[in-house]
This record gives sequence, structure tokens and C-alpha cells, in this order.
Amino acid sequence: MAVPWQHQCSQTTLLVTAEDARSAARHNLHTTSTSGLAPGHLQANLIILPSRYAADFRALCARNPVPCPLIAESVAVGRYDSVKSWIRGLRGDNILADGFDIRTDLPRYMVYKDSRLEKASCMDVTAEWTEDHVAFLIGCSYSFEAELTGAGLPPRHTVLNRNVSIYKTTIPLCPSGVFQGGTYVVSMRPYRKEDVDLVRSITRKYGNTHGEPICWGWESVESLGIRDIDDPEWGDAPLAFDGRRLGGLRSEDAEEVPVFWGCGVTPQEAVMRAGLTGTVMAHAPGHMLVLDAVDKDIVEV
Amino acid sequence: MAVPWQHQCSQTTLLVTAEDARSAARHNLHTTSTSGLAPGHLQANLIILPSRYAADFRALCARNPVPCPLIAESVAVGRYDSVKSWIRGLRGDNILADGFDIRTDLPRYMVYKDSRLEKASCMDVTAEWTEDHVAFLIGCSYSFEAELTGAGLPPRHTVLNRNVSIYKTTIPLCPSGVFQGGTYVVSMRPYRKEDVDLVRSITRKYGNTHGEPICWGWESVESLGIRDIDDPEWGDAPLAFDGRRLGGLRSEDAEEVPVFWGCGVTPQEAVMRAGLTGTVMAHAPGHMLVLDAVDKDIVEV
Repeated sequence: MAVPWQHQCSQTTLLVTAEDARSAARHNLHTTSTSGLAPGHLQANLIILPSRYAADFRALCARNPVPCPLIAESVAVGRYDSVKSWIRGLRGDNILADGFDIRTDLPRYMVYKDSRLEKASCMDVTAEWTEDHVAFLIGCSYSFEAELTGAGLPPRHTVLNRNVSIYKTTIPLCPSGVFQGGTYVVSMRPYRKEDVDLVRSITRKYGNTHGEPICWGWESVESLGIRDIDDPEWGDAPLAFDGRRLGGLRSEDAEEVPVFWGCGVTPQEAVMRAGLTGTVMAHAPGHMLVLDAVDKDIVEV
Repeated sequence: MAVPWQHQCSQTTLLVTAEDARSAARHNLHTTSTSGLAPGHLQANLIILPSRYAADFRALCARNPVPCPLIAESVAVGRYDSVKSWIRGLRGDNILADGFDIRTDLPRYMVYKDSRLEKASCMDVTAEWTEDHVAFLIGCSYSFEAELTGAGLPPRHTVLNRNVSIYKTTIPLCPSGVFQGGTYVVSMRPYRKEDVDLVRSITRKYGNTHGEPICWGWESVESLGIRDIDDPEWGDAPLAFDGRRLGGLRSEDAEEVPVFWGCGVTPQEAVMRAGLTGTVMAHAPGHMLVLDAVDKDIVEV
């Protein structure tokens, strides 16, 4: 087999179009994080469920759109090559152009059987996909990070080349059928107090990828029920500008405060808590589906 | 002026169509609660805001659709006689047919100036409405109560001819621009434990009018931060089947549990907390706008 991607994949920024990125994943030529691929394009969280859970999951997203922004789903049960859009003004083929295969086009997948992890970081789910599966695409906050950076407000973790800090909270999701007992998962980016209004304004426009923060300020750590700001459940610990642990700033007259957004880990957490039977698949953390839709397609003006 | 409604209004069940109900309110012939009017028709909460707050309020509803289900809004700033629909598959004129006037067609209104109550229970807001106002219609739970009753699960308060019990909670809304610091307001209907699954299934279909409960069971009283189940902030205190205070059941091996839904008082509370300037109008409690749309128009099958 020809391997035209091999050179390019050592320099992932050469994967410029969404189809470039998906094709490289499909042929196992790009097998790492999709961060930075196809700049300007939306990337999506993936969840694949047995069809009997589809209605409850769809309603879970509709009832909790801030942490669970549903962008698209399979056009019909068992279809892995066509999606319908949940975004006003976008068609399914605006989101994913013909020729994709949701079973192979992400670099890495997770497979769960009867709610237990069966395979971590596998390259495709062709063997696991059945005629009874439905795929859901959930928005991710990469979109607004680009505009924040453009406005001179780059997220700290991108400046320091770390992962964003992600926390469990005690804020309940509105339940939906089998999906009960879920709580918000939040991502956190520290900002100076005086920049919070501008950060809110910029991210507010991205209603389909979590939108404006759900809260901000040091008092939010308690109101969200976060255990320890320096020990996130996912991602890396947050750092202050000077490299100290962010939590250390709290006792001072901090000019930096934590700012919290709804996070796309939320629906995955809700799915894991639901005790589902059968085979569930998802993207591996950081290994997203790159969409043909671009950031400006979802910005509300 | 002819008063063709006068006799009918002494027997409000004769106000069968939505236009009957609106016309009677318009001519000040029906000036009391709209409960029971035009059976089968949707009724809506009304909020009228200066246009500078419209985008933030629209996003508040989009981010919190369970307590704040936005059904329709003015077709353009200053228009009181035409709405656009926010419900898939329904046009504005399916919701309110031509010939209505949002300034007069509710039996009673509230008027706030600079966030302070200016008029309570006035019959119209023709004098207060300006070319800069936008009207929003929010779903109300009357719809699913009819189906619950039809299924042999009538809400307790309807059986006892009381008002539903409504509580403040500590569950935060996702903020939106000027609308910060809001929390869920919930309505409560007690049910037997073994009926909760069926109650959930029935109300789940009414996604545009609060949908399935957000939680249930006695432990929910604490998790919602409700101060005293026997002392609701709005409506009447809840009673057990035998007429005792509902809270008294808790210490026993209760067969009845409280079941909580998102409540349309939530957006009004959020508006009141926001410290808005200018003139804000709303329906008076229980005095809703009767819509041409019927319950089955919004049921998801």
C-alpha cells in the first residue's frame, strides 16, 4: 500500500483539510491527538450507542445543551457514512462531506462492553460496529480557543503546551430516561479578573460548543463542588503565569481567577454512569473527529 | 359595546377556543386565572423586555431549556401582533393565529420599572408597550397535567382544587450575559413511588413544556436546597392523600415521594434578579396567554 501520508504525518499541520485529517486517521497514518489539525475546522466528541438508548441520549443532550451540545447524529440506525445535523442552517453534508467512515476516521477509539472498558486506544471500530448502532457527535471547545487566542487571550494550557484542566462537579444534569445521576464536567482556563467580561463575550457566540462560561471566580470552586483545583480529574494541573500551582494564588489578592466552561466529557461520564448493556464506543481522549464544518459555521452573530 | 361574553365568562369552560379566551381577556370580560380555559390548548408564560436584553434572554432560554422552554418570540422588535416559533415543525401562526394583541390578550399583567414592581394585576399593557419591546412566550406544565390525569395520575393539587407547590432551589442556571446568579425554580407533585416511572414516561414527551422530572424522592429536597417542603415560595402547601402536610410523611416508610419539575417561574426570577433598567412586563401569576397550538402539537413521539 502506498503511504503518501507518512511524511506529512510527522508534521501534522500539513493535514490542512478535514478530509486530510480523516484520511490520515483512516489509514492509520495519523494515530495521535487531533489537536492543531485542520486549523479552523470543528472537531467533535464521538459517542456510539445501541439504538435502544438513542432517544434517551438525544433528549439528555437537548435538556443539557451547555455541557452536551449535540451537533449531529447518524442519519439512520446502522449508518456510519452519513449524518443529520442538529445545527440550524447546516446540513449533514456540511458537517461531514461524503466519503467518511465514522468507524475508522478517528485516530483512536475506546470500546466498552456492558459498561466495562474492553479496548483502549484501538485504531478503528469496524469489528464492533453493528447494524444496531447510532453515532452522536458532540461539540468541543477547541473552536472558541482559536478566537480567544486571536483576541490576545490565549488559554494558559495552550501557551504552556499542556492539556486543559477538567473537573468533576456536583451540579446535576437534568436526567433523561436511563441517563440518571449525571453531573456537569467542566473545563477551566485561568484569566485575569479584568479580562473575564471579554472572555465571556467571545465564547458566548459559540453556543454550539459550550458557549460562555458557567461560572468564574475563586468562590466557584466550592459552588461547583470541585475537590481540589490543583488536582483535576482529567488533563493537567493548572499553572499560574509564573509556573506556580494555580491554587496557591487563592490566598493572595489574586488577579487571576478560574473560569469554568461546560465540557464535552460530560456526556461520556453520563453514559458511563448509566450502566448500559451492549457495546458502546467513543473517541479516545484528545483523538477527535475532524469535521468539514468550520468554526464560523457555528458562530451566532 | 355589546358584551356577548358576559354570560359565558361566568362559566369559563364555555371559552372553548384559544381566540374565545383571548378575546374575553382583551375585552376585560375574563379577568381571572386561565386555568381550565380552552382545554387542550397550550398556555404560555409571558415576558416582555427592552430589546437590548433580548439576545441575552434568548440565550438564557437556549442554555436552560428545561426550566426556560422558549416557545416563541415577537417576530420583530416592537411587534405585538405576530410571533416567530422556536418549536420545530410549528410556524408562528400555528402558535398564535392572526388577530391577537399581546398587550391586551392576557387577563392580568405585571409591570416592573427599573426592576421594581410598578403595577400588579393590570388588565393590559398598551400604555407601557413601546416600539423597543420584545415579547417572549415560555412553555407551561398545564399540558402534561392533562395527560397525567387521563392516565389515572391526576396531580394532587388539581384533585384538591389547590395551586401547585413551587420552590426556589440552589441549582444554578447557566448564566447568559446580564442574566447571572439565577437558580432553578421547581414545581412539585407528589406521587407513589411505584408510579414515578410512568409519570416520567408521560411527561418526558413534553420536552417543550419542562419534560420529565429533574429529580424525585425525599433526598431530592436536600439536593435541591429546598428550605421547607411544607412552605413553598409560590402556590399552596402540598398535602398528602389524607390531608396531612406532605412533609409529615417523610419520617415514615413513605409510599409517596415528591417529584420535581423545572418551572416557568424560573425565567421570571432570573429577569427579576438581573437588575434590568427600563420597563419589563409579564403575565400575572396564573393569568397566562392561551395559544392556538394544542398539546399534541408539542408532544414528541
